[in-house]
Amino acid sequence: MSLIVQKYGGTSVADISCIKRVARRVKKTWAAGHKVVVVVSARAGVTNELIERAKAIRKNPSDREMDVLMTCGEQETIALLAMALDSLGVPAVSRTGWQAGFITDGLHSKARIREVKANAVRKQLRAGNVVVVAGFQGVNDSGDLTTFGRGGSDLSAIAIAGALKAKSCQIFTDVAGVFTADPRIVPNACKIPAISYEELLELASSGSKVMQTRAVEFAQKHNIPFEVRSSFSTKPGTQVKKKVKSLEDTLVSGVAIDKNQVRVSVTELPDRPGAAAAVFKVMAESGVVVDMIVQNVARNGKANLTFTVPTEDAFRAEKALKEHLSDGSGGKLGRSTNIVKVSVVGVGMRSHSGVASTFFEALANAGINMLMISTSEIKISVAVSPEFGDEATRVAHRAFGLGK
Amino acid sequence: MSLIVQKYGGTSVADISCIKRVARRVKKTWAAGHKVVVVVSARAGVTNELIERAKAIRKNPSDREMDVLMTCGEQETIALLAMALDSLGVPAVSRTGWQAGFITDGLHSKARIREVKANAVRKQLRAGNVVVVAGFQGVNDSGDLTTFGRGGSDLSAIAIAGALKAKSCQIFTDVAGVFTADPRIVPNACKIPAISYEELLELASSGSKVMQTRAVEFAQKHNIPFEVRSSFSTKPGTQVKKKVKSLEDTLVSGVAIDKNQVRVSVTELPDRPGAAAAVFKVMAESGVVVDMIVQNVARNGKANLTFTVPTEDAFRAEKALKEHLSDGSGGKLGRSTNIVKVSVVGVGMRSHSGVASTFFEALANAGINMLMISTSEIKISVAVSPEFGDEATRVAHRAFGLGK
Repeated sequence: MSLIVQKYGGTSVADISCIKRVARRVKKTWAAGHKVVVVVSARAGVTNELIERAKAIRKNPSDREMDVLMTCGEQETIALLAMALDSLGVPAVSRTGWQAGFITDGLHSKARIREVKANAVRKQLRAGNVVVVAGFQGVNDSGDLTTFGRGGSDLSAIAIAGALKAKSCQIFTDVAGVFTADPRIVPNACKIPAISYEELLELASSGSKVMQTRAVEFAQKHNIPFEVRSSFSTKPGTQVKKKVKSLEDTLVSGVAIDKNQVRVSVTELPDRPGAAAAVFKVMAESGVVVDMIVQNVARNGKANLTFTVPTEDAFRAEKALKEHLSDGSGGKLGRSTNIVKVSVVGVGMRSHSGVASTFFEALANAGINMLMISTSEIKISVAVSPEFGDEATRVAHRAFGLGK
Repeated sequence: MSLIVQKYGGTSVADISCIKRVARRVKKTWAAGHKVVVVVSARAGVTNELIERAKAIRKNPSDREMDVLMTCGEQETIALLAMALDSLGVPAVSRTGWQAGFITDGLHSKARIREVKANAVRKQLRAGNVVVVAGFQGVNDSGDLTTFGRGGSDLSAIAIAGALKAKSCQIFTDVAGVFTADPRIVPNACKIPAISYEELLELASSGSKVMQTRAVEFAQKHNIPFEVRSSFSTKPGTQVKKKVKSLEDTLVSGVAIDKNQVRVSVTELPDRPGAAAAVFKVMAESGVVVDMIVQNVARNGKANLTFTVPTEDAFRAEKALKEHLSDGSGGKLGRSTNIVKVSVVGVGMRSHSGVASTFFEALANAGINMLMISTSEIKISVAVSPEFGDEATRVAHRAFGLGK
């Protein structure tokens, strides 16, 4: 009897009939002789409803009280799913985050898991029950309810799979797995059978939002393998693990596109130590995450500094920069423009050269101009004009032979 | 700085504007220099919504999972009320039942409070916070969520007032207090300034549903005085306590009416020991609460046994009786009829005679026939035909001079 952890998101448990469907799916796994822990999110829409109600009372409600409010969402789902399992003859018992032993730090609304004290869950499993656990939530040392941020149920599933040494952790979602590219842009994109944590992270940071980044980082840190698969199909999805041997010869695992980037530039920055650092300090203090950075060689003691920020942070970034540059220490704020970032990702790059040249040549042959370039150990990203984003993705996908 | 516990029911926190109104009211008490603990119910309607959702999944959901589901209701309210207080500049912190230390036995859906470990609440009060506590809920020794049954928030308020030795426990409701009679029936009924626990209990058991009976019993057992008052007015309500000195000369405190009773009779019951006992054993085993009982003197070895049961139990009672009597041991099921029970209640009866005769004479003068009579130490009840119920109440109210 091996233990399987399954996670179902908000759309999978959106209403009564969805919950019943999930129950039937869990029953199959249970009937096949497995022990099962099910981690669920709040019903789709519930979280937003609760937020609306809070905002109607107070524009900036305290994070502590928001956590008390939000945790109601999953608590409702676990009770309903346990009932649905029970009605199918599957012995089931629900546990909220604190009942399942999710101990976190004190940071409300984005708490970090310190430990999963899974004894109570283990006991219920030994008693023959399917255990239905509320995702997204835990409790801190003071006994206050905490939550893990949007998508935090993925983290719950992976953390409890690690604590229980589960044989398998299945993240059910509305996509069939991780693809070589977004199938809406690249019609012949393939499902990737297996991928490493770091590749998935790089794909995620490049716009392929399959899972919460923190969940993948947690899995990587604690080496907890998991599978991303569809809740609407029984086909296997994508295995995510430490090393993917069979794929080490693959140069590139996937192509990601991020349409949510704005390029910000500071011109005539004095070419002296600390000038650029000061700019990024301002960004950090404003809570803006800077992505690609390019600084050209200084001429006449002046340099140009260009970087990208998420679209939703662009206004805040410009405002902070204007203030910073207005002190006369030098530098002018350039005009910001929307760009699209296209990235090729693959652990194979580490041991193989030529990936960049293949990528760049393909873009050049397609007549697509690269506005910025940035690279990491297993990723090469280029910024292109928004109108070329989709085409650049298709070109890269073809260049590395990723299609079916 | 004295401590005041305030309890607001579901209709008082039904929506955002209601919650804001409660917050303003709490702020007044807080601003007057009191420490305040607020106990709240789920928003009106939420409990029924949750029940409906559960029933859509499973006809008879387990009590354990129902408790997990139901406790979401108050958890939402405490977060929203804490936010509303915060927005008025009142430092407030919420606590669920388990966070507030409500330790109960294991009986899901109607758990009994074993203890209120109020240290965490005390600490928050010392830190200057208004503490908003979820009513109706607690946690058992196994860490499972439990609930106290409908109206259980009254019990929560009284129990925590006792644990914290509060100066005052105010039960806010949609009536102005306890009245000498239902004002819809007796227009000149008066608010009773003070009443004893036992009188309130007798009034409640006779149809004047102001508060959950268990809450009053708990208050009586632990001698925790409280006040029933209107959430829509600032006028004082009714003080409920052990002894009400000033009122000991009052023969009758109030007149109650219960329209929810059916009279069941068994005729030709053999006049032998155990025959009547067997009937009531059957009722108890069917979960039917029997109220008034009359057995007449046997004639020809046969007796008639008449008693009343709540209307909702009448069908079940008849079915069980039919089965019991069909074994041929004797007794026939008579025709059941609706009756109305009118009761006069008052601790003064203990030391004064003549209450019964005043009551009966007044009914006789009004031409109202008494179908059954039953008495307790501080209550006299009569059953009358439904069409005479309201008039009998008015007659009794007048006879004891209870009007304005």
